[in-house]
Amino acid sequence: MKEADILIRNCIVLPMVSGEVVKEGIIATKNDEIIYVGKKSKAPRVKAEKIIDGHGKVAIPGLINCHTHLAMTLFRGIAEDQPLEKWLKETIWPLEAKLKPKDIYDGALLGCLEMIKSGTTTFADMYFHEDHVAKAVEKAGLRAVLAQGILEPDIKKLGEKMLQNSVNFARKYKGYADGRIIVQLGPHSLYTCSLDMLAKVRQKASELNVGIHIHLAESEETVNETKQKHGLAEVELLERIGFLGSDVLAAHCIHLTEKEMRLLAKHNVKVSYNPVANMKIAQGTAKIKDLLDLGVTVGIGTDGPASNNNLDMFQSMKAAALLQKQYYKDTTVLPAQTVLKMATIDGAKALGLEKTVGSLEVGKKADVILLDFKKPHLTPVHDFYANIVYSAGGSDVDTVIVDGKILMENKDVKTLDEEMVMLKAQKTAANIPKRKASIFKFIKNFT
Amino acid sequence: MKEADILIRNCIVLPMVSGEVVKEGIIATKNDEIIYVGKKSKAPRVKAEKIIDGHGKVAIPGLINCHTHLAMTLFRGIAEDQPLEKWLKETIWPLEAKLKPKDIYDGALLGCLEMIKSGTTTFADMYFHEDHVAKAVEKAGLRAVLAQGILEPDIKKLGEKMLQNSVNFARKYKGYADGRIIVQLGPHSLYTCSLDMLAKVRQKASELNVGIHIHLAESEETVNETKQKHGLAEVELLERIGFLGSDVLAAHCIHLTEKEMRLLAKHNVKVSYNPVANMKIAQGTAKIKDLLDLGVTVGIGTDGPASNNNLDMFQSMKAAALLQKQYYKDTTVLPAQTVLKMATIDGAKALGLEKTVGSLEVGKKADVILLDFKKPHLTPVHDFYANIVYSAGGSDVDTVIVDGKILMENKDVKTLDEEMVMLKAQKTAANIPKRKASIFKFIKNFT
Repeated sequence: MKEADILIRNCIVLPMVSGEVVKEGIIATKNDEIIYVGKKSKAPRVKAEKIIDGHGKVAIPGLINCHTHLAMTLFRGIAEDQPLEKWLKETIWPLEAKLKPKDIYDGALLGCLEMIKSGTTTFADMYFHEDHVAKAVEKAGLRAVLAQGILEPDIKKLGEKMLQNSVNFARKYKGYADGRIIVQLGPHSLYTCSLDMLAKVRQKASELNVGIHIHLAESEETVNETKQKHGLAEVELLERIGFLGSDVLAAHCIHLTEKEMRLLAKHNVKVSYNPVANMKIAQGTAKIKDLLDLGVTVGIGTDGPASNNNLDMFQSMKAAALLQKQYYKDTTVLPAQTVLKMATIDGAKALGLEKTVGSLEVGKKADVILLDFKKPHLTPVHDFYANIVYSAGGSDVDTVIVDGKILMENKDVKTLDEEMVMLKAQKTAANIPKRKASIFKFIKNFT
Repeated sequence: MKEADILIRNCIVLPMVSGEVVKEGIIATKNDEIIYVGKKSKAPRVKAEKIIDGHGKVAIPGLINCHTHLAMTLFRGIAEDQPLEKWLKETIWPLEAKLKPKDIYDGALLGCLEMIKSGTTTFADMYFHEDHVAKAVEKAGLRAVLAQGILEPDIKKLGEKMLQNSVNFARKYKGYADGRIIVQLGPHSLYTCSLDMLAKVRQKASELNVGIHIHLAESEETVNETKQKHGLAEVELLERIGFLGSDVLAAHCIHLTEKEMRLLAKHNVKVSYNPVANMKIAQGTAKIKDLLDLGVTVGIGTDGPASNNNLDMFQSMKAAALLQKQYYKDTTVLPAQTVLKMATIDGAKALGLEKTVGSLEVGKKADVILLDFKKPHLTPVHDFYANIVYSAGGSDVDTVIVDGKILMENKDVKTLDEEMVMLKAQKTAANIPKRKASIFKFIKNFT
C-alpha cells in the first residue's frame, strides 16, 4: 500500500519518456513529487487524500513556455499591424517608460492566470521589475525561470546599473517560492548590449552558477548591422568572447548561417523557437529542422503577449509544426510527437530542468495537466499526439497540478481570483497610456 | 414598440458593415431576420419572447467557412505527417473506398457540432454522398453551401455518372432546410476532371443557376503537369473554355502567375484562402495580398479536418494573417479588421450570400454569435478586432444563432445531443478501417 496525496485514475497517460500511450493509467503524487505513473493493472495499491477521476481525460506533463515577456499582457492588442519599428518606438517603448513596478505584478498575474488555464506549468521570462513577476508566480503557484533584462542605453552607466540589478535579482530570488523559481541573467541582445557587457554577463552567470536568456538572430536588419560593425555573425562573436555554453537559452535563432548553427550545437546552446511571434512580426523562419538534425535542443516559446497575442502553447505547438512543414516544403518535418516533446521534455532541457520536470516519471516534480478529450474537435481519436498538437487548444485543459499542488481542477482556478485578476489588469492597462511619460521614470524602470 | 423573438442586450456589437464598434448595443430578431441592431440609446422599445444578457460579450456575424470536406472529421489525425502522396494513396483513398453513405452523416454531424461550438454558422462543402451532409446540416440548424464532388476516374462513364449525381443533388436540395441549404456543382479540380467535363459542368451550372466549387492551383506539381499537358496555366485554360465567372468559388489559388490573378479579378472569381491546411500539407503560400490589391473577393476556409485538423475559424483567421505577414515580410499586411471581414462579409460574398448573411444589418438573416470576452487571454481590450483575430479561439464562442434560432446558448448546444454525436462518430471512425475495401463500393461511393 502506497500513501499518496493525489491519485489520478482511469486516464490515458502520455509520459513523454518514449512514445508510449498508457491506457487505463494512473498517476500518484506525494508532496511535490510523482510516486507512481503507469498502468493501473501493474500499480501497487494506493491510498490517497485526493482522488481525481481521469475518465475521458489525457494526462501529459505540464507544458513549458521557453520565451515570454509576461507582463506585456498589458499591451495585448495595442497598436496592431504596424511596421515593427513604428510599433516599438512610437507605442511599446513610450508605454514601457510609463510603467510602474506594481503594473508588472498586475500584468504578470494576468499572464499566470492565462497560463494556468491553458496548461503551461513552467515558463522562461525576461523583462523589467522581475521581482514583481516572481511574486506573481509565487502567488499563482507556477514554476518559472526568470531573468531581469539588461540593456545598455546610451546614457552612461545605465548598462552597469542594469547588470547589477539583474545580478541582484538572481541572487535574491534563486530558489524562491519553495524552489519553483529558477533565475537567469537576461542580456537583451547583441544589438542592445556591447560585447564588453556580454562578456561581463557571462562571467557573472558562471560565478553565480545561473543560466543566461538572450535574444539571438531575430531580425535580419540587426543581424546585418552587427555583422557590418564587427565583421562577424552573432554566434561567431559570442563564441569569440567565450559566451556560449549549455546554460545559454537563445530565443528566436532565425537568421543563422550553417556555421553558426554548428557552433550552437558544438557549445550545446539551447534554442527557443517562437513561431507565432516570428510570423506575426514578420521576422522570418528559424531553420528548426536543421538545428534538430545537428542535435541542438529546441523548446517552444510564445514570446510576449504583445506580439502573439496569447500565451496558448497548444497554438504555438501547431504553428511550430506548420511553419516548418511550409518552410521545408515537406509534410514529414516536425511530426506531432516531436512537437509535443519540444513543448515538454525538450523545453525542460532548454531550461536546464530536465531532471526536475518535462516528463511524467517517478521522482520528478508533480507537474501534470489533464486534457478533456470529450470534445467534438478531439473526436475521433486515431492518434493522441496528432489530436493534441493539431486539434487541441488551451481551453481543453481541465486540470493543472504544479509541484504536487492543484492549481486548477475542472477549470476552476484555485490559487487566483479570476475575475479580480482580470479586472485589475484591465484597469491598469487602461490607465498606463493616460500617464505622463518621464525620462526619470524610464531610467528608473530600466534600472 | 417593436415585437421581437430574440433580444440580445447590453453587448458590444461589431456589425462588420464599417469598422464601427457599437458599445451598449442591442440586436433584435423576428422570425429568421434581424429587425434592429445598434446602440441601445437610439433603439425603439422592444418587447421580446427571449432575452439574452450580452454583458461582457461581443456580438459578431456568424463566421463563414468557405472550404471544407466536412465528413472527413472521421479521418482526423489518421496517418499524420506522411508525404502527401503516400497519405492520399495509402490511407485516405482506401478509407474513402470503404465509406458507407451513413458514415458521411455521422462525420458531417460531428463537424456540424464542432462548427456550432466554434462559431461557424455557414460553410461551403464539397464531398460525396452530399445528401447526407444536407441532412446533418438540417438537423444541426446550420446554413451551408453544398456541392456533390465530381471526379473523372479512368473507368469509362464514371465521370458522366458523377456529373449527373452532382446535378441531381443540386436539383433536389436547392433551398432545402427552409432555404438554409444552397447548392453548387463540385468539379474536384483540373487534374481530376477533363476540360470537356469542366465545360459541361459550367453549362449545367448556368442552366441550373447555381455556383461552382473547385480546387484551383493547390499543388505545384499538378499545376506544372497541367501546364505541360495543355500548354496553358490552370486559370488560362478555364478562361478559354468559358468556365470563369462570379459564381465560381476557387479553393487554394496558391500557384498562380500574375496574369492568372488578373484573370480571376477580371471574371470576379471568388477565392477561398485555407492557410492552415496549405501549411500543414506544405503546398505553398497563396498571394492573398496581391489578390486583394487586384480587387478579388477572398474568404477563409479551414479545408477538411483530415488536413487541418480542426474546423476552428478563429485559428484559421489568425493563421491567415500570420502567413501573409510572413510571406510578404510585412507586419502591416492583412490587419485584424480585414481578416475578420474575410471570415464574415467577404466570405458571404465568396458564396454569393452577401445579401443574406455576413454582417449584422436590418433585413439580413439572423446569424449572430456571441463571444465571451471575460477571459484572461482576451484581457485587456485595447482593440476588439485584434483580440478576436489574434487572441480568441473557437472555445470563446458562447452563443450561436442561425436563421433566428438559437443553436447554442451559454455553451449548451440545443439542436444536437453532443455526447451521442461524438460517441457515434468515434464508433464509426474506429469501424471504417476494419472493413474490407471493395472496388464496387468504391465506384458506388464516388458515383
